[in-house]
Amino acid sequence: MGYRTPVSEIMFLLRSVLGYGQVSATERFGEASDEIAEAILTEAAKLSEEILAPLNPVGDRQPATLENCAVTCSPGFREGYRAIADGGWIGISAPQEYGGMELPVTLQMAVGESMSSACLALALNPLMSQGHILALVNHADEEICTTYVPRLVSGEWTGTMNLTEPQAGSDVGAIRCQARPNGDGSYAITGTKVFISWGDHDLADNICHLVLARLPGSDPGTRGISMFIVPKYIPGPDGEPGRTNKLRPVSLECKLGMHGSPTAVMAYEGAVGWLVGQPGKGLAAMFTMMNNARLGVAVQGVGVAEAATQAAIAYARDRVQGKPPTADGAGPIIEHPDVRRMIMQMMALTTAARALCLDTAISCDMARATDDAGWAEREAFLTPVAKAFSTDVAAEVADLGIQVHGGAGYIEETGAAQFWRDVRVTRIYEGTNGIQANDLVGRKLADGGEIARSLIAEIGETVSRAGHGSTTASRQQAALLNRAANAVTEATDILAGFNSRADRQAGAAEYLRSFAVALGGHYLLRASLAREASPTTGKLADFYCRRVLPAAITSAEISKLGSRDLYAMSQSDFQK
Amino acid sequence: MGYRTPVSEIMFLLRSVLGYGQVSATERFGEASDEIAEAILTEAAKLSEEILAPLNPVGDRQPATLENCAVTCSPGFREGYRAIADGGWIGISAPQEYGGMELPVTLQMAVGESMSSACLALALNPLMSQGHILALVNHADEEICTTYVPRLVSGEWTGTMNLTEPQAGSDVGAIRCQARPNGDGSYAITGTKVFISWGDHDLADNICHLVLARLPGSDPGTRGISMFIVPKYIPGPDGEPGRTNKLRPVSLECKLGMHGSPTAVMAYEGAVGWLVGQPGKGLAAMFTMMNNARLGVAVQGVGVAEAATQAAIAYARDRVQGKPPTADGAGPIIEHPDVRRMIMQMMALTTAARALCLDTAISCDMARATDDAGWAEREAFLTPVAKAFSTDVAAEVADLGIQVHGGAGYIEETGAAQFWRDVRVTRIYEGTNGIQANDLVGRKLADGGEIARSLIAEIGETVSRAGHGSTTASRQQAALLNRAANAVTEATDILAGFNSRADRQAGAAEYLRSFAVALGGHYLLRASLAREASPTTGKLADFYCRRVLPAAITSAEISKLGSRDLYAMSQSDFQK
Repeated sequence: MGYRTPVSEIMFLLRSVLGYGQVSATERFGEASDEIAEAILTEAAKLSEEILAPLNPVGDRQPATLENCAVTCSPGFREGYRAIADGGWIGISAPQEYGGMELPVTLQMAVGESMSSACLALALNPLMSQGHILALVNHADEEICTTYVPRLVSGEWTGTMNLTEPQAGSDVGAIRCQARPNGDGSYAITGTKVFISWGDHDLADNICHLVLARLPGSDPGTRGISMFIVPKYIPGPDGEPGRTNKLRPVSLECKLGMHGSPTAVMAYEGAVGWLVGQPGKGLAAMFTMMNNARLGVAVQGVGVAEAATQAAIAYARDRVQGKPPTADGAGPIIEHPDVRRMIMQMMALTTAARALCLDTAISCDMARATDDAGWAEREAFLTPVAKAFSTDVAAEVADLGIQVHGGAGYIEETGAAQFWRDVRVTRIYEGTNGIQANDLVGRKLADGGEIARSLIAEIGETVSRAGHGSTTASRQQAALLNRAANAVTEATDILAGFNSRADRQAGAAEYLRSFAVALGGHYLLRASLAREASPTTGKLADFYCRRVLPAAITSAEISKLGSRDLYAMSQSDFQK
Repeated sequence: MGYRTPVSEIMFLLRSVLGYGQVSATERFGEASDEIAEAILTEAAKLSEEILAPLNPVGDRQPATLENCAVTCSPGFREGYRAIADGGWIGISAPQEYGGMELPVTLQMAVGESMSSACLALALNPLMSQGHILALVNHADEEICTTYVPRLVSGEWTGTMNLTEPQAGSDVGAIRCQARPNGDGSYAITGTKVFISWGDHDLADNICHLVLARLPGSDPGTRGISMFIVPKYIPGPDGEPGRTNKLRPVSLECKLGMHGSPTAVMAYEGAVGWLVGQPGKGLAAMFTMMNNARLGVAVQGVGVAEAATQAAIAYARDRVQGKPPTADGAGPIIEHPDVRRMIMQMMALTTAARALCLDTAISCDMARATDDAGWAEREAFLTPVAKAFSTDVAAEVADLGIQVHGGAGYIEETGAAQFWRDVRVTRIYEGTNGIQANDLVGRKLADGGEIARSLIAEIGETVSRAGHGSTTASRQQAALLNRAANAVTEATDILAGFNSRADRQAGAAEYLRSFAVALGGHYLLRASLAREASPTTGKLADFYCRRVLPAAITSAEISKLGSRDLYAMSQSDFQK
């Protein structure tokens, strides 16, 4: 049996755990009721299961190729992409005035999970367009919006993000790409961009690049960066793709995974582009869509984790090997304690990551629907946590998936290894997980830890509810979650109190992890307390509290250590 | 700069931390002085750095191929293999009467680390032959030994292990391969074996397979299994390869990594073989070499971890990006706290794993040299710990290596990803790490935890020495190690006391991990206390005690939980 979208699991989280009802209670999203949400997800499930999932191994084995400056995609990807576009999935949260459905980002993310489970390489394409659309809608003038956005929404055209240059990766401020005014309102863009996901392909009629570049005489560093839209084919007066622009894919990367997603080095050689937003405000404009893109990547992690878990369960239920302690004779390996442990770890971590992503998405929707700064701050805090945790978890889950398969897991045909290879990049792109952690302990703790503490207070409510629960188990779980929450509180106080950037960043990754693991416990425990909870939910919550939560305390302890031991090492200590 | 064998680091561990002097003080290994050991390692380093390392990417990109029942290896592998054979490295620990050097296994492992760092895929070939030689020397009759062993030692021929069948992986007792007496003392072997590493190739004149199979009327399960030697070409009266035997590689696996190492499905179709050891004792005979092979795989992990660490350090010292907190302007990424943390984690874990493997090897040598059951028991206990921990650590280290490289780590050209792909199999083959953990809490705790406690007592000595140290840091480290050791003691008592196999196995992986992490702290702290310790050693020990050791306590706690929560899940709870 192939991949199945866990529609009821997602709906249960939305309905009974994360308070999605708040979103559909707003005027803006009043039409997106639970029923509509479920119908949408059920429809997306069909697309993922029937059309996208079969493409996943194809993309892996027959990567996109580049010949004569043009990319040919993996077999079947064109049809897969058309199905995504024709279903209206690209514009699911885009404004209705441009043809979008204007549904909550929460549903966009739930659908994104399903598509990422089925075929991560292809699902990355609409994710790029979605970010592109968001940036244009927020910053481009009406003419650009009218020309580009409807075609991006319909999927006639696709969008990319062009930030990275060879010398400017995590350090975006180091970019050198130049934009010179042509005198007619347009600009000539020159420079090389690298790691451009879906930078070229043959799935759509035009490819629109959002390119960060510098105007003549601009400030050095981030303040001198502006954003331009640079189409592959320049739209004519009728808006249709016209003459070929001066840009081209120079080469495609040979990557560890995501073979179906062409990652291009792009050369801009005086290509015509138009300013989007204000001069010098390019990075700020790019960041408009960054939170969304980061959450989208977090959800990619959840998607792959889910698919890997389903595959491992199917294998472990089927594969008979050895005598499990619970059986008289031979039994399926899922009956062996260590295999059970691995699979429950996969299930529990995946659920925690999913809940964290959907919770973040709900904050995003509430922020847009209510203009309440509190929701926006909550979203901003949770976004790096969701991005790093979900993608790290995805890697762990995919790794366990290989291990459950034993020797078969090392054979590519099984598919377990592809999940592991594909999802590895999610910990790197849209800001490495180290950058996410630094963002968390830097900008997101700049308020002295206020938002952090309000989130911990939410965990505290769960502790209190579970602590008043009727069972011993529930009270034990509450105690375990409480210990974790206290450890995170202490870590928050210490990190927010560090004046030294080095001391904060030295604990950043462990702090993020401890916060996320504690939140995960909070979600799972809340889920188990819900009236609609299945018995499985309670069992997973118990597993998580006993076997996953304790690491939150260890991580929190380590996060407080500061940077002294790291900088005790001199350059020569690293000379090997 | 490419890979460099850390000769002086290994020699420091042997000399000043692990008491290698005991080995060279025995009569058996009297010639293997420190000076000899260092000379040998220096010679191996040349081979690895100059000849093997350049082959590593070649094997990855141009895998071995199978055509017309014959395997053609990756370009250059033939010359690489000849260099290994001609250097005498295959027979480094084999008996002198068959042309071996009869040196300690400790040196075989140190050399194995170096070769594994340079080219894991090719280094697996001699590891297989070494296991094969060990099995023959211990169990085969003189005629077989005289014919086969000298040629395996010289590398003229190579050896393989044939255990696994489609239905018999971890469960070796399930094998079905048949052996029928031919009436002339030989047997006709029929059956299919899978996952046979180096099952066919074009590097040597003959390939000798050690095959587990069943004699007619034999008992079911493990007691009915016998071991046979089945050569690709049947030796004639002169011992030279003669007529072709009835066996062939049916297909090669398309694997996640180790592309340079052909993994074959082998068909035996009435192939001629000879019994090695007693009928029905095949599994016991295979286990003779299993400890050695498991330690060899552990060392493969160390090798890849070392190579990945060196590559990450080189990149992080070179790559300039962003403004580190310690610099006024841009600086190399190694100056960023989170990158430093990752690299120190790589260095510390690699050192811990290396020390554990070499310590295990020393016990193995002492057991052989003194016939003291205590050493043999120590070796038997440490072997699964070393195998699982070192290979898990290798995966973590290689993963961090990718992360340090950022986007470049996802590009195959960089090489970081190959380490990660290649080493993944070491957690699966020679017994999955789950099997190692079950062995630890099963057979190895069957004495009620006696050996475990004697090893913890060794940790206690280090605690005591460091606790009496002159610096506050040393006393703090001692306290941290002591906490970990106490947690492991408690876990040992509880696990050894569990009557239920399910309860033991439910905590097996976490118990193994906690034990290994505590041992790692012991080695690093002992190293920092050695008179000859470099300042770097002390800094890494401090890092390890503060940032790695705490997880030992968490793991030990979790290991004690028993299996109740795992079996709370019913079959239908896993129905996704």
